[in-house]
Amino acid sequence: MSSSEVQASTRSERTRALIRDAALRSFRERGYDATTIRLIAQEAGVSVGTTNYHFASKNDLVQELYLEVQIAHRDAAEPLLATTYDLVERLGVVFRTGLAQLAPYHRFAPEFLSASMSPRSSTNPLSDESTAARDIVVAVFRDAVAGAKHSLPKEFEDGLPSALLLAHLLLALFWVYDKSPGQQRTARLLDRGLRLLKVSLPLARVRVLRAPLRELLDIVAEVRV
Amino acid sequence: MSSSEVQASTRSERTRALIRDAALRSFRERGYDATTIRLIAQEAGVSVGTTNYHFASKNDLVQELYLEVQIAHRDAAEPLLATTYDLVERLGVVFRTGLAQLAPYHRFAPEFLSASMSPRSSTNPLSDESTAARDIVVAVFRDAVAGAKHSLPKEFEDGLPSALLLAHLLLALFWVYDKSPGQQRTARLLDRGLRLLKVSLPLARVRVLRAPLRELLDIVAEVRV
Repeated sequence: MSSSEVQASTRSERTRALIRDAALRSFRERGYDATTIRLIAQEAGVSVGTTNYHFASKNDLVQELYLEVQIAHRDAAEPLLATTYDLVERLGVVFRTGLAQLAPYHRFAPEFLSASMSPRSSTNPLSDESTAARDIVVAVFRDAVAGAKHSLPKEFEDGLPSALLLAHLLLALFWVYDKSPGQQRTARLLDRGLRLLKVSLPLARVRVLRAPLRELLDIVAEVRV
Repeated sequence: MSSSEVQASTRSERTRALIRDAALRSFRERGYDATTIRLIAQEAGVSVGTTNYHFASKNDLVQELYLEVQIAHRDAAEPLLATTYDLVERLGVVFRTGLAQLAPYHRFAPEFLSASMSPRSSTNPLSDESTAARDIVVAVFRDAVAGAKHSLPKEFEDGLPSALLLAHLLLALFWVYDKSPGQQRTARLLDRGLRLLKVSLPLARVRVLRAPLRELLDIVAEVRV
């Protein structure tokens, strides 16, 4: 690569980062509906054409937001996961740090929800376009399960991270609807859900429960197919 | 009431029914997005002004659709509920007849979902505006529980119908995403969920599970608050 090519790429990357940062700031401050490519271009100090060159649509910028949120989620979860081997505590870490990343967006959450809820939407968390962001969360859940000392039957481990991702999305859905101060009701739901999980986990080894539970997990994990 | 008042009311009611029927047909054939007040008025043979007099917005007509679907749900469930006292079988009846009513709308389900998913949307199934339709389903679930021979602790019975409504809505959400032929994956999810419920119901009496399970149900039932 010639030196001028490196410079060009660097300049292009810098422009891209400027646009991305302006978009993420706008999503946080204005929400989804009021954010437009025109405003982002203006605030990044570039033309609409340049913005479109880097990001074909507003929804491509939502994917950048998803990536930022999920990377922050992983970075927050990892050091805490290093502090315990208990499976339920580890899952609690992942769910709690996930909710914490969402907090600044609660005001605008209904807008993001409307825009992303259709299975046909590119910003749906289960869409092909959201794969990179989704894979980060699934990997965090996989680590949480793999690094735990637990007595779950081996056959559960494969489908569990996908099922946990869905649980995380359902918890986020509950959080969107949660009008209590600081969304403390969602925190309580999580605490109590984890408490129930703690006492009921040993039951996954009980023969009559094991087969139907596993079948259920398999179907839930297929939701994206 | 004078005879002319009765006539006027009857004429007005007939016009209202014409508009309502045209709207419901349009939702079924065109979906949510492509249905407009203008088209409905045209097909009902009345003016846009007359349509607006009876229904202030398209979303008021979605409420009529919800009512029709839920009344059909109740009518389909009731005779089947008369055939069994088994709690899990009775819940199966309510979930299955509920899904059956949705079947004709699967093609357009993503549109209805996008329009109704925001907690701020009047057509959200948990909104104040949807209370009449929602109450019909909750009452069917209440009947299903109350008419069953089961050994569930008494304290569960109060919150159960609301929790079952949420389960029904989540099942419908899974169904919207289900691209399998005839949405057979949703039917399988339901079958296996019911099978798991059947074997795990007796556990609700186990002391260590009972308190956290009940607390969880209480929070879930509060989702609308």
